[in-house]
Amino acid sequence: MAVEFWYEFASTYSFPAAMRVEGAAKAAGVALVWRPFLLGPIFGAQGWNDSPFNIYPAKGKYMWRDMARICEADGLTLKEPLHFPQNGLKAARLALLGQDEPWGPAFTRRVYLANFAEQKDISDESVLADILSSLSLDAAALVARSNAPENKERLKAQTDAAIAKGIFGAPSFIVGDELFWGNDRLEAALAWAGR
Amino acid sequence: MAVEFWYEFASTYSFPAAMRVEGAAKAAGVALVWRPFLLGPIFGAQGWNDSPFNIYPAKGKYMWRDMARICEADGLTLKEPLHFPQNGLKAARLALLGQDEPWGPAFTRRVYLANFAEQKDISDESVLADILSSLSLDAAALVARSNAPENKERLKAQTDAAIAKGIFGAPSFIVGDELFWGNDRLEAALAWAGR
Repeated sequence: MAVEFWYEFASTYSFPAAMRVEGAAKAAGVALVWRPFLLGPIFGAQGWNDSPFNIYPAKGKYMWRDMARICEADGLTLKEPLHFPQNGLKAARLALLGQDEPWGPAFTRRVYLANFAEQKDISDESVLADILSSLSLDAAALVARSNAPENKERLKAQTDAAIAKGIFGAPSFIVGDELFWGNDRLEAALAWAGR
Repeated sequence: MAVEFWYEFASTYSFPAAMRVEGAAKAAGVALVWRPFLLGPIFGAQGWNDSPFNIYPAKGKYMWRDMARICEADGLTLKEPLHFPQNGLKAARLALLGQDEPWGPAFTRRVYLANFAEQKDISDESVLADILSSLSLDAAALVARSNAPENKERLKAQTDAAIAKGIFGAPSFIVGDELFWGNDRLEAALAWAGR
């Protein structure tokens, strides 16, 4: 069975997950599907208009320390974004265009690196265009397509699909009807897929 | 360095953690300290007057499924309590008396089994007394000592100490100045202690 990787660009723990999910799935012999979605509407429905890591400072302080340990163990550079959380809407619209294309995973990883390793503003269309260009893609055409009404609607529908699957945070992994939440559940999700 | 295991009897993920922490610490050659505390005051200060798993239903639904998978993998029986969360105050006062005594870990494990495997009411003093008696302890004397004003104050002080260490949930593991949150961080905490 395939593993679906559901991610949001503002999500901290989605960063190490995005960087290792492809290699881990390959090593486990499990097919992988990338699914960007938006946490904003989900958090908003719970009454949160900010990241829970900002709303609950003790949890936020812990998260950054935990992320530092995880990134060190995974060999990833971690630099706290100048503003957290960043707005990942435009990046998600682009990732949606690429989710079943060969360039999708590479684009996703570069956006996470821009956000959490390079202190770039991922809500800035020129930052995203530079990433697309670095992958030898037609940045202007993709940005235009990403902002078309049908693609905006498609991202809303994908977020609704996430909610329907019981997703409430990121990263999440779906295997059949089973939901696994968190970077630390990747191994359990892959094991489930291999049962 | 020793690992401190901070737990709350109402906490679901503290159940599998409590059942495996002693064996895991022994296997890692790491000294273990048991520290019961109360989540109620910590959640209350965040504006929660119930478990976040009740306040956020999608998260709660996921938690019970995740717990079922974890308990199955660990060989533990899991039966959802008839009422969740249970009030662990009296159990915590007793566990505090035993935290540095030989009977403390066994008492703690039996309370978790009563709560999450046996659908017993752990706020009921007779349930707790039965557990103490089954461990060949003087239940009446311990219950009386647990309810003495100085022991009540000591549990409040221990909860304040948890907050001062940055603890915001359970189970938590402390190694020196490092905080690890969640049953799934036990291995990381033990590895840190062995550095």
